[in-house]
Amino acid sequence: MGTDKLITPDTFGFIAAALTTIAFLPQVIKTWRTKKAEDVSIVMLLMFITGLIFWIIYAIQTSALPVLIANIITFILNLTILTLKLIYDREEN
Amino acid sequence: MGTDKLITPDTFGFIAAALTTIAFLPQVIKTWRTKKAEDVSIVMLLMFITGLIFWIIYAIQTSALPVLIANIITFILNLTILTLKLIYDREEN
Repeated sequence: MGTDKLITPDTFGFIAAALTTIAFLPQVIKTWRTKKAEDVSIVMLLMFITGLIFWIIYAIQTSALPVLIANIITFILNLTILTLKLIYDREEN
Repeated sequence: MGTDKLITPDTFGFIAAALTTIAFLPQVIKTWRTKKAEDVSIVMLLMFITGLIFWIIYAIQTSALPVLIANIITFILNLTILTLKLIYDREEN
């Protein structure tokens, strides 16, 4: 049996999706702990979250369940970061 | 002609990919201008960049050119944010 059968493109896709989804959890934790997100760009968050909404629509239309799940989790995590940022930025001023 | 033909799932996919790629440019600009990225989680950046490498491998193996291009741009932008963060975090200490 070759490694081709063990490590398929889907394996890489799955690891990729898991990492680029879960990556935002450390940012949520850091922001929650430090009560600061001043250096995090709000324009980035708004553009990224808008993009995720389009990914969710795309995933629903194409019935792509893994894409849907990954993007819903990423959406929730980024919405949490945005909410925390808005709260802490306001408290600072 | 119905709107189904004008707005295909690919349209949403294209807008989604453009937004979640370009979103990191405002973070690069903000970090460059303020010379600070203390609040940006390094664990997030490292996990996200690793995930992007896996997306690039996946895109090469599946000959998915749009996925490849989007992820290479996202990779370069995030590597820039990480590099700036490492420089500015060091300068601060």
